[in-house]
Amino acid sequence: MEKHTYLQIIEALSEQIENGHYQPGDRLPSERELSQQLGVSRMTVRQAMNSLVTRGMAYRQQGLGTFVAKPKVEHHVDLLTSFQVSMERIGLKHSTKLLSIEQIRANKKLAGKLGVNIGQLLCYIHRLRMHNGDPISLEYSYFPASLCPHIEQFDLEHRSIYEILENEYEIQIDVADQFFEPVVANEYESEMLSVPINAPLMLVSRVSYDVDGNAIEFGKDLYRGDKTRFVSRSPRHERNER
Amino acid sequence: MEKHTYLQIIEALSEQIENGHYQPGDRLPSERELSQQLGVSRMTVRQAMNSLVTRGMAYRQQGLGTFVAKPKVEHHVDLLTSFQVSMERIGLKHSTKLLSIEQIRANKKLAGKLGVNIGQLLCYIHRLRMHNGDPISLEYSYFPASLCPHIEQFDLEHRSIYEILENEYEIQIDVADQFFEPVVANEYESEMLSVPINAPLMLVSRVSYDVDGNAIEFGKDLYRGDKTRFVSRSPRHERNER
Repeated sequence: MEKHTYLQIIEALSEQIENGHYQPGDRLPSERELSQQLGVSRMTVRQAMNSLVTRGMAYRQQGLGTFVAKPKVEHHVDLLTSFQVSMERIGLKHSTKLLSIEQIRANKKLAGKLGVNIGQLLCYIHRLRMHNGDPISLEYSYFPASLCPHIEQFDLEHRSIYEILENEYEIQIDVADQFFEPVVANEYESEMLSVPINAPLMLVSRVSYDVDGNAIEFGKDLYRGDKTRFVSRSPRHERNER
Repeated sequence: MEKHTYLQIIEALSEQIENGHYQPGDRLPSERELSQQLGVSRMTVRQAMNSLVTRGMAYRQQGLGTFVAKPKVEHHVDLLTSFQVSMERIGLKHSTKLLSIEQIRANKKLAGKLGVNIGQLLCYIHRLRMHNGDPISLEYSYFPASLCPHIEQFDLEHRSIYEILENEYEIQIDVADQFFEPVVANEYESEMLSVPINAPLMLVSRVSYDVDGNAIEFGKDLYRGDKTRFVSRSPRHERNER
């Protein structure tokens, strides 16, 4: 019965969050209050609360309690928009930290993804993205170095790579194949993204192409699962608008 | 340095898997072999191997070692195809277990999703999907009960709900809004999907509509992250084919 109760508590609280009974920023009842109110152990209540926190519906503040989180930021899977553009569209303050930029040699895997020879020089860019100061995604991008010589001279913390490619190198990213996989944070990812080890992350892998179908970028982004969700909207709305 | 080494081991092994040096079903070197070969602690090797298992690239067999997993099954995010159709397309043996079918009253959340009144009767269907005998996804579907009276008389283990709606009730699902979120398995999900607690899962939430734009279904599917990945292919291929 305890297991059932634990799921029921999650269901009840998440419904009250989703239907607006509790608003973002509201404090949820304490473990003690809920345990008395529902007649279940504090252990069971804590498990349910942990689940809400892991799913990004609530967050804890040391010594103050558990609060309702803001809704997750939505990214569209169908559109290939840069991080900058997505953030600006929804009016979120964002920033980027350049963690690493270097030239590396393509290994077999990268050579295959980018359609280049093994050993060919690639430009490797590793960045951390933030919303309102919170780390939100950890990004790894690889480009054939010959396409964008001296790209390190440009401001990779304030400009989008796609925008730099377009305006400085006349390369226009047209389309991409994207792969979405749920993963859990390893030690490095947890440190960089300020989440616990094994917190849920969305791994987005991508090969981007220019208008002629040449592979331009292989990218791997890791998004915090508690902060973001990915949306695929069908053409229904467009049709209705016509 | 140990942390770096741990990431390097993951990178090296996953590259050897992705580039085909190790094929699905191949046994990976043992922890002892790798630890001697690389001059790192067995603890470090174990951590790296655990990460490969969690990411679905390898699996363990008690007493036999760690083996390379088959590539993940791909689901297209752009297409709203039934589980049956997806599985048949890729030639995988699949089966479905009906866990629960009942009438429930819409709570505020479900009423909002389906555009019905609170308290209205819904048909609730809970199923487990399997590939080749392995559990792969856990599905929750809700329909306004008035749309499909006595749907329980149909074989929900061998027919798709969408196909039943179309052929028995003349309701055609046209499009859907889908949301993708990485989550981790709770106790119930871990038991049903045969994965450890906190294993990565993809939560796909969906509202499906008929051609007139009426909400027909609210669905929540939880897919094993070690077995599936979601793909969004851009129109490039179609254009190239023209």
